[in-house]
Amino acid sequence: MDWGTSNLRAYLLEHDNVLDDARSTQGFSSLAPDQFESALLSVIEPWLSNDEPTTVLACGMVGARQGWIEAPYQYTPHACNDNPQYIKAPVKDPRFSFHIAPGVAQKKPADVMRGEETQIKGLLHTTPDYEGAICLPGTHSKWVRIQQGSIHFFETHMTGELYKLLSEHSTLQYSLEHSDYNASSEIFIESVQLAMHDPEQISTRLFAIRAGHLLHNHSPAENNQRLSGYLIGLELVSVKSYWAAGPVTLIGNDTLSNLYSGLLASFGCVVHVADTATMTLHGLINANAKKSQGLSL
Amino acid sequence: MDWGTSNLRAYLLEHDNVLDDARSTQGFSSLAPDQFESALLSVIEPWLSNDEPTTVLACGMVGARQGWIEAPYQYTPHACNDNPQYIKAPVKDPRFSFHIAPGVAQKKPADVMRGEETQIKGLLHTTPDYEGAICLPGTHSKWVRIQQGSIHFFETHMTGELYKLLSEHSTLQYSLEHSDYNASSEIFIESVQLAMHDPEQISTRLFAIRAGHLLHNHSPAENNQRLSGYLIGLELVSVKSYWAAGPVTLIGNDTLSNLYSGLLASFGCVVHVADTATMTLHGLINANAKKSQGLSL
Repeated sequence: MDWGTSNLRAYLLEHDNVLDDARSTQGFSSLAPDQFESALLSVIEPWLSNDEPTTVLACGMVGARQGWIEAPYQYTPHACNDNPQYIKAPVKDPRFSFHIAPGVAQKKPADVMRGEETQIKGLLHTTPDYEGAICLPGTHSKWVRIQQGSIHFFETHMTGELYKLLSEHSTLQYSLEHSDYNASSEIFIESVQLAMHDPEQISTRLFAIRAGHLLHNHSPAENNQRLSGYLIGLELVSVKSYWAAGPVTLIGNDTLSNLYSGLLASFGCVVHVADTATMTLHGLINANAKKSQGLSL
Repeated sequence: MDWGTSNLRAYLLEHDNVLDDARSTQGFSSLAPDQFESALLSVIEPWLSNDEPTTVLACGMVGARQGWIEAPYQYTPHACNDNPQYIKAPVKDPRFSFHIAPGVAQKKPADVMRGEETQIKGLLHTTPDYEGAICLPGTHSKWVRIQQGSIHFFETHMTGELYKLLSEHSTLQYSLEHSDYNASSEIFIESVQLAMHDPEQISTRLFAIRAGHLLHNHSPAENNQRLSGYLIGLELVSVKSYWAAGPVTLIGNDTLSNLYSGLLASFGCVVHVADTATMTLHGLINANAKKSQGLSL
């Protein structure tokens, strides 16, 4: 299962086959330590049997310091094919055992991931020889360098979180409204280019969104595209070394993957796109396969 | 009076003399349009007389679109000695009239100020020949170029608001706690330098505050200095054209003025420091003097 901040998604696996799946909105952030087991049982109970205990493998924020039990990080360079050091959470129910995958950390510059490593392992499970960059856009966008099957180094950008903070909690909230757009929106592209051209101006450019609304009646829908463009442009210029040197594989939802792939292709990048849930599932299938090969859990 | 977002400060003036002053926490953001007059009366009523109506001059966010009545902006270049186009708010009480000073705006890049123009006029009232930059650090830091008594151009940075958003509403909140520090704090200065060196890395550097807490036990107090340093460094590198070319006068509170003046002096700047409340008062005295000279209100 993938047990994140606000959701849980579980799969019933037999070898490579998904026999069933289930979801819950009981993410780790809504649970106290003594509530995890019952939240889990409400999802997987139909799959359990009294004959043989079921092994449950989990990735994601459930293993964070504020989660069920902390699963320590493994450090870069991290060979994705190595057997991860699962942490066993104590459970009362004899019908299953619960094992949390470690996140991956980098000492300098300090950085962490938890959950994304399973998506990356899913990609390498389906494309074992992949060399290049992986981008996982979102709340905390990750850029990852893959060399010889290892996570060599990576960095996290707060792009999605900054978008949320600025559009919901800042002065800009009065000048913005959600708008659907795509990677060919002129205002979005122009905003990306401006941010890439002089990224140090980001803070005054953000305020200019407010001023442009007051002085020039820039519409809230257009301003939403400006904000997205400035923040994504800031990210892209600072990770140029990742995308300028070879192929990029995006693992994300459709909207973000379309935005990022359109921009990266316009810079001359070779871009592949993979779906988050599919890559997570492949990562979990890979972990399950290792268990079947008799590696210790 | 200076009537801002969260406070009101009123002075009773006779020529250059302050006969009395009063405060209230009824800032404009807590008031509906029909509540302004009674909020005002609760502060100035002791000063009113039935013999002769009192003229009340106000600056600040009370003149914003969401305030009592919108006072349109005057555009740059804005001669600070010109008589501003006050907007009269309708009042029921015959003992006073209420006049709001306009803010100053810049068409391109779009930018606005409301309240700061009065502080700037206060500085030019006390130092009429001032040429150089003025910096008003804070929630929305302003950098202003003064030439021949005019606000020539300016820009706003969301430094203080970003600090508040990140320290109170973001993932970083768990890795930060308020700490007292000064411009000679080693971590603060190092963080400023890092941000000035490669400002495009701001978003990954912010996340590294969280990661440094998880991996290296960086203390929340130190992390507060890192966050301040990164955001102030980002601002300072992007306004280099303002401070590299001549003197800078800071108009701000003691903490921010000390931080900024220490840094700017270390870059070889000539720095003057002025107090916000004093400059606002001088700006209001200046406006009052013009009224006494018979200029129309």
